[in-house]
Amino acid sequence: MTGRFRELWDEIAPVGRDADSGGYLRYALTPAELRLREWFRAQAELRGMPVSGDGNGNLFAWWGDPAAGGAVLTGSHFDSVPHGGAYDGPLGIVSAFLAVDELRAAGVTPVRPVVVAAFVEEEGARFGVPCLGSRLLTGEIDADRAAGLRDAAGVSFAEALGHRPAGADPALLGRFAAFVELHVEQGRALVDADAPVAVGSAIWPHGRWRFELRGEGNHAGTTRMADRRDPMLTFAFTVLAANKEARLRDAHATVGRVSVEPNATNAIPSRVTGWLDARAAAPETLDGLVEAVQAKAAERARRDGTELTVTRESATPLVTFDGGLADRLAGLLAAPLLPTGAGHDAGVLAAHLPTAMLFVRNPTGVSHSPAESATDDDCAAGVVALARVLEELACH
Amino acid sequence: MTGRFRELWDEIAPVGRDADSGGYLRYALTPAELRLREWFRAQAELRGMPVSGDGNGNLFAWWGDPAAGGAVLTGSHFDSVPHGGAYDGPLGIVSAFLAVDELRAAGVTPVRPVVVAAFVEEEGARFGVPCLGSRLLTGEIDADRAAGLRDAAGVSFAEALGHRPAGADPALLGRFAAFVELHVEQGRALVDADAPVAVGSAIWPHGRWRFELRGEGNHAGTTRMADRRDPMLTFAFTVLAANKEARLRDAHATVGRVSVEPNATNAIPSRVTGWLDARAAAPETLDGLVEAVQAKAAERARRDGTELTVTRESATPLVTFDGGLADRLAGLLAAPLLPTGAGHDAGVLAAHLPTAMLFVRNPTGVSHSPAESATDDDCAAGVVALARVLEELACH
Repeated sequence: MTGRFRELWDEIAPVGRDADSGGYLRYALTPAELRLREWFRAQAELRGMPVSGDGNGNLFAWWGDPAAGGAVLTGSHFDSVPHGGAYDGPLGIVSAFLAVDELRAAGVTPVRPVVVAAFVEEEGARFGVPCLGSRLLTGEIDADRAAGLRDAAGVSFAEALGHRPAGADPALLGRFAAFVELHVEQGRALVDADAPVAVGSAIWPHGRWRFELRGEGNHAGTTRMADRRDPMLTFAFTVLAANKEARLRDAHATVGRVSVEPNATNAIPSRVTGWLDARAAAPETLDGLVEAVQAKAAERARRDGTELTVTRESATPLVTFDGGLADRLAGLLAAPLLPTGAGHDAGVLAAHLPTAMLFVRNPTGVSHSPAESATDDDCAAGVVALARVLEELACH
Repeated sequence: MTGRFRELWDEIAPVGRDADSGGYLRYALTPAELRLREWFRAQAELRGMPVSGDGNGNLFAWWGDPAAGGAVLTGSHFDSVPHGGAYDGPLGIVSAFLAVDELRAAGVTPVRPVVVAAFVEEEGARFGVPCLGSRLLTGEIDADRAAGLRDAAGVSFAEALGHRPAGADPALLGRFAAFVELHVEQGRALVDADAPVAVGSAIWPHGRWRFELRGEGNHAGTTRMADRRDPMLTFAFTVLAANKEARLRDAHATVGRVSVEPNATNAIPSRVTGWLDARAAAPETLDGLVEAVQAKAAERARRDGTELTVTRESATPLVTFDGGLADRLAGLLAAPLLPTGAGHDAGVLAAHLPTAMLFVRNPTGVSHSPAESATDDDCAAGVVALARVLEELACH
């Protein structure tokens, strides 16, 4: 399996790879991601699996009769964050096709359909809303709102898709009895546990908050420090406060994105906008964290003479994967159970059907970066584990 | 004069004005600034003043025989910072033409030429080096280095100019006996002094330092706080340290520009670059300030596990304007003497010929921002003062 994994993996490895950073620029519905979608269709065709869409940009390749019902869904997404890693997303799709091959090679004939999915815009890196495809399919985002989301160049999601997204499809959703998403681990827990594969137990509640700080643009050389209303100071204080408050709570807080106006060396900014990504094991911890950061930012804004506006851009509640299913799969695979701080399409679908995740060991623990990695042997172990799970769910 | 000022001012007010911010986007050698240069040639022609260049992008309009020697140079620049104010630069050129009109209307005939100049790329907003035109003319920057400076789109200064800059022109410089630059004030000192015009005494030493911070790009959701090497934290600490160290020294420090990679909400940055603009009344104060900020940033980088590289991008030493000239003009105009923290072409030329500055009151004290302002009456007072100065220097 290790050789077969490497062979298929090499087919997509160059697509959207930035030669300088070694990272991937596979934004949803841009040429790189569209090439991967074509590759998806070709792989499905090679395996005699008809592909259908849902009108939202998500693709489904069917092994078995779509009318049969009780289908077992697997797969993940192709899109990346800016200069992201190779594995986050694509590993789940490549592993799904290889798991189908594994079952067929073993002569297994499912009694229920097995479906490989490629979800669109999971990272939210282009249109700003993560898990956009699965949110549309499940009706968790309004089709009109999704249609109007725009990328940095002003292109709307509807324009990129070529049509208005179709929105919720309860009939399609009703044909799936379970969803299993395989994903590279985005931390070091499996390194510590000395195991190649884990079963997901929960996704931490998390969200994005936009901190917009307005001050007074002015000349950097001539404006007395006492006369300034500099939003960069409030921003800097907020970054350090978020870090401190997260550490106090064993939670995660990150300010990884900032936008400055006018962003000139010799001008005090008139506006600084920072985005807070916050996550915690429990919803009340997350609420307390964001409230504390907001209170500290507001207090500092008063001192700096700046104006603070905080807008929640997205929020994902605690996802506890189907406990019976997770325990069953952990027993089947003799694999540890693992919570994660990362959002996934599985987190969205978990509210609508029994859902599980498999994580594959990542030696660096690094993700959303070119340093993200997984050994071919561990990826092969992931395929074998996924094949066993699909057999368990689709054949018994 | 107030009416004549307003009339001429209105001719250039719409050029390069951004309708949303109300600020100006008049980058050197871009269409907006090129239109202003055409306007300069038209104004010179109306007044029968032949225009010559110096091969560096600077323009000179001559009232009097260029061969006569001992010329009195005045003028300023057209280019702006991003979303800058209307007055910073253009006021000095408009006032220069109106001062010529004023002298002619009074029947004054200078015994030495009066020359109106428009210097190129004073702000450094496009090619990164402030006072590029005057530095080229005086040989303070090498012509080859200037030729290769590139804007954000990759266009070189030589390409924008249409040819390699000619560099130092000691023969041209030798024909000027003095330079007087009129400029809007970029602080509130004249508001406090209740005077419309001041004479410049000195320019604080100042410079730009690039703080490049490298950490480890990683997933914002899954990376434990203890495992992070987040350069945004070091950046934020550096911003607050610069502010604190400047206040302790009665100096000025600003971080108005930042660049983040990959700049995604759900990714810990791999690199954050911030630019420090620092200024102080004395060179030793400036050195102490920058050393203190650098030491604090380095100490924090060790704690954050990030790597710090500091590069000095530009440095301008203390400029003390010709003391005799400044005192003479302050006496002539009964105007206060005023130091400034802002760099000017006058600061570059001061090392090569007797140089003076006139400042016109700015009610907001704000500059490098759409809020920069001056009343028409104060601008008219500036023209009258400049005319008296030109008469003093060119007729006696």
